[in-house]
Amino acid sequence: MQTTTDPLSTTFAALADPTRRAMLARLSKGEATVTELAAPFDLSLPAISKHLKVLERSGLISRGRQAQFRPCHLEPSALEVAVDWIDRNRQVWTERFDRLEQHLRDLQAPTPSASKGKKRP
Amino acid sequence: MQTTTDPLSTTFAALADPTRRAMLARLSKGEATVTELAAPFDLSLPAISKHLKVLERSGLISRGRQAQFRPCHLEPSALEVAVDWIDRNRQVWTERFDRLEQHLRDLQAPTPSASKGKKRP
Repeated sequence: MQTTTDPLSTTFAALADPTRRAMLARLSKGEATVTELAAPFDLSLPAISKHLKVLERSGLISRGRQAQFRPCHLEPSALEVAVDWIDRNRQVWTERFDRLEQHLRDLQAPTPSASKGKKRP
Repeated sequence: MQTTTDPLSTTFAALADPTRRAMLARLSKGEATVTELAAPFDLSLPAISKHLKVLERSGLISRGRQAQFRPCHLEPSALEVAVDWIDRNRQVWTERFDRLEQHLRDLQAPTPSASKGKKRP
């Protein structure tokens, strides 16, 4: 299986890890330093740095240039691309399931002729 | 970095590939056999099978039991879990950006006292 580097694949791959998702959820409440982001996890600083690099490469976060802390920020636009893809396909699926549900309801509902037959046996 | 196997990570990892996303988009229009799914791609049958196994393990697709064709179907419920996670964090981000936008508008708008000052120099 080839390695893929298109932006959408990079975003989904970045989201495919519970530590990185927890970091993003933390950043959704405001910017944070690497030390603050690392605090909840029992992980080495190199492991934390790797996760942050994956998030940064995917465009989901960016890091400040000023000062030694270089706080991390969310970049929601990268997530929008992922949301757009899911929403597009999800809509088609929902429409198909709505039609299926209606079809099943039609099958279960008694036909006018069937109810007439019951009233006058 | 450890290998993760939680359902949400498995779903995002399955979505992190353009071939698998194209297969899902095809299946959103209706069930398909492996041969039909493989047709648009210049890939070996083992490579196609690997992609389908990843999608099946993630719960995004299932395969029929009857007949030798075993057609593939979409399973939208697995995708809903991914959508829920994104929507939850996306909402928080959107709210924050809406507040930021409002704050910037407030800063740019002339205050009543400032406009008074301009009218009577």
